[in-house]
Amino acid sequence: MAKEKKQVERITARDVDFAQWYTDVVTKAEMIDYSGIKGMFILRPYAYALWENIQKGLDAMFKELGHENVCMPLLIPESLLQKEKDHIEGFAPEVAWVTHGGSEPLPERLCIRPTSETLFCEHWAHVVHSWRDLPKLYNQWCSVIRWEKTSRPFLRHREFLWQEGHTLHATAEEAKAETEQMLEVYADFCENQLAMPVVRGVKTDKEKFAGAEKTYTIECMMHDKKALQSGTSHYFGNGFAKAFDITFSDQNNQLQNPYETSWGLSTRTIGGIIMTHGDDNGLILPPRVAPIQAIVIPIAQHKPGVTEAAEAICARLKAMNIRVKADLSDQSPGWKFAEYEMKGVPLRIEIGPKDLEQNQCVFVRRDTGAKETTSLDTLEEQASSILDAIHHHLFQQAKNNLENNTFSARTLDEAKEIIQTKGGFIKTMWCGDLACELQMKEDVGVSSRCIPFDQEQISDVCPCCGKPATKMVYWGVAY
Amino acid sequence: MAKEKKQVERITARDVDFAQWYTDVVTKAEMIDYSGIKGMFILRPYAYALWENIQKGLDAMFKELGHENVCMPLLIPESLLQKEKDHIEGFAPEVAWVTHGGSEPLPERLCIRPTSETLFCEHWAHVVHSWRDLPKLYNQWCSVIRWEKTSRPFLRHREFLWQEGHTLHATAEEAKAETEQMLEVYADFCENQLAMPVVRGVKTDKEKFAGAEKTYTIECMMHDKKALQSGTSHYFGNGFAKAFDITFSDQNNQLQNPYETSWGLSTRTIGGIIMTHGDDNGLILPPRVAPIQAIVIPIAQHKPGVTEAAEAICARLKAMNIRVKADLSDQSPGWKFAEYEMKGVPLRIEIGPKDLEQNQCVFVRRDTGAKETTSLDTLEEQASSILDAIHHHLFQQAKNNLENNTFSARTLDEAKEIIQTKGGFIKTMWCGDLACELQMKEDVGVSSRCIPFDQEQISDVCPCCGKPATKMVYWGVAY
Repeated sequence: MAKEKKQVERITARDVDFAQWYTDVVTKAEMIDYSGIKGMFILRPYAYALWENIQKGLDAMFKELGHENVCMPLLIPESLLQKEKDHIEGFAPEVAWVTHGGSEPLPERLCIRPTSETLFCEHWAHVVHSWRDLPKLYNQWCSVIRWEKTSRPFLRHREFLWQEGHTLHATAEEAKAETEQMLEVYADFCENQLAMPVVRGVKTDKEKFAGAEKTYTIECMMHDKKALQSGTSHYFGNGFAKAFDITFSDQNNQLQNPYETSWGLSTRTIGGIIMTHGDDNGLILPPRVAPIQAIVIPIAQHKPGVTEAAEAICARLKAMNIRVKADLSDQSPGWKFAEYEMKGVPLRIEIGPKDLEQNQCVFVRRDTGAKETTSLDTLEEQASSILDAIHHHLFQQAKNNLENNTFSARTLDEAKEIIQTKGGFIKTMWCGDLACELQMKEDVGVSSRCIPFDQEQISDVCPCCGKPATKMVYWGVAY
Repeated sequence: MAKEKKQVERITARDVDFAQWYTDVVTKAEMIDYSGIKGMFILRPYAYALWENIQKGLDAMFKELGHENVCMPLLIPESLLQKEKDHIEGFAPEVAWVTHGGSEPLPERLCIRPTSETLFCEHWAHVVHSWRDLPKLYNQWCSVIRWEKTSRPFLRHREFLWQEGHTLHATAEEAKAETEQMLEVYADFCENQLAMPVVRGVKTDKEKFAGAEKTYTIECMMHDKKALQSGTSHYFGNGFAKAFDITFSDQNNQLQNPYETSWGLSTRTIGGIIMTHGDDNGLILPPRVAPIQAIVIPIAQHKPGVTEAAEAICARLKAMNIRVKADLSDQSPGWKFAEYEMKGVPLRIEIGPKDLEQNQCVFVRRDTGAKETTSLDTLEEQASSILDAIHHHLFQQAKNNLENNTFSARTLDEAKEIIQTKGGFIKTMWCGDLACELQMKEDVGVSSRCIPFDQEQISDVCPCCGKPATKMVYWGVAY
């Protein structure tokens, strides 16, 4: 069988060639297929089901905070994209242009949205008139296109799925609070659903979003110690509102420009999950978003009662809202073990004739490989508690990785040595000058990840220029 | 207040100018805003929430039948679109072409998907090898672009949201059964969730999907007696599989081409809901998909206990999973009545000081305007049962419209007279010739809607050519 063959091929070991391991995993776990266009990937059912669980979790959090979903057009007229100067400068080099509709050339080129600030602003200019119309708390789930030169599954697509939240507020204070609140939503979701610990902070001016006054970010450390920016939240002030002529009458009947935010999290996060938790046997999915949380595999399936017992376990766990599947196919148990290990299913439940006799089943954890025998009487409680334990173990393991690989440096030489010998995140002071930020890139090979909320006073001076420095920055090599 | 003003403007009466009434409703109910590109509309939160409920209902039905969601690329290389001859002929005149990525011209033009058969086929050619890999039961929720010359909110967009199901099967029988099954899913959903009665049938060759062997359809009658094609399901045979070189080894190890289907339902359906149920006061939304099923409006809100009582009603209904909102804003009750009538909220619940004294509240039905007083003791049961009653009443009303405006004709003259004096659907026999179908369009002004599953023997001959005819066709003027 073609499938049987596929499974016995081993994947590249994670610590031998991390990049190749990653490619092996996304293809062999049946997450990705390559389309005919470079950088545009097909999300196969298993990857899309994971994205659906991420969507479901985040969408509920957004709605709980009063946000509403909308759908803006896919295309942006060139003249509209150009209305905010910094924004167009940031995005123009990487947009895809539509020039023909049917056989007719278009009077004006249209770009496929790389992000939708301009479209939200155009709409708000139509519908916002009074303080009663504010705030607008909007979000959309969609895909965007950025015509990147290089690409990698999930991490850098020319087309990727994301959500983009866009909000409009009467005051700067309210907009700033929204920006911070949404960053905290992302941090909460990453840590408590994806088991990915984050560093929260503010981007430097160099790294902020095109057109934003301030960009907040959560940064995660992957198993190879590189950084993944996993969610960003932007405060725009009223610059876009002025550029797009959005005004409202306040309660004193004065005309004002409102304040804007936007915030996004994308399918990149799936790349983050893979690179945070996976191992040499394939994916390890965090239980709270895993498409299949538990897989039931019958042993000696032809023996009387085994199939029925597997189905019964399945039914009982389904009734607890556990996402469970029984694999009753004619593949061997060994084939099935390898298959669901590759797919990172957190919990495997084996049941065979001997287990049946003793009213038990066997739980095998994907994260530790630990096996334990469980009485069928306590199936539901045990399954729930082991899924929780897996979540916490994955989180702790990733947190150890982050903490053990974050180092302080007081000088450029110290920073260089850390990067060359250990890798990971480096914390240094920073004077705030772009020149010093560029020097860190040039000399050490790292970019600023963020100015973290949790500041430490490592020294009093910038390691690059020696001038007084009051801010601490996280640096790293980023995806 | 700007908003106060907006509400007192009346909308055009439905039976005076149906088209203008429709435009008034979609704008004043805050469903749609116009973007800068003709034919690309903004779905505002209220319309999008309705679409989310439609998605949720259909998605659950698809998954229950074993379908999985995926995400295919937005763009199709021209050479890929051209692989199936009939398909490209049907779609090429109305696609949007991407010719530049960033500042570079692309080596090959890419079209924005008008539909994704070609992409699914390309993927399947990669991943389907054995009978074990079949069936593939896929669906995707996305937007597609068709560069139409004319446009109307929901009914004809250059970009619209839809789901497109695509499936691949080992045998023709299985694929045919899938095609029919999915049509039945659409029919069930339209009738039992949207309260829209349907006529199920097969399209004539002239009206079938580009590249399909057979197209099934559900056709609905709008209040103005015109037809809306509300969902289609296509059987492709193995033509696409041959064109895209998709093969699998069957259980006898013989190489075969698999059989394909696709099926789609779009945001057009929202236009259908509006035109089926709406009235002179605005939208009337079918309760099972309405974003707000019940709106609680306090009367003499400043009196002690009223706000709390409104909130308590809200909380009790929420606990029953009824989508309910209390409007505690400082607008007048009259303003609120008009606002939620315009938005088509099925049930209004009023509560004031007098009601409080008597432990009651007032229910007002959006469909009939009927008012009744209900004891707060039986709030939950009454609310559920009235929402059900509204669903059934809306369905019955639409069914009466369909039945009362469907007429049989034996001759062209009869058909002409019906269309000119009454409008609606006409049933005639048909010989099967394209020439006669074109003559019906030319002479009577109607297109074939479908060859319904429920056949009647109206006469023995085709009204156009007089030749023997065994098939009965529904004709109508279509959106």
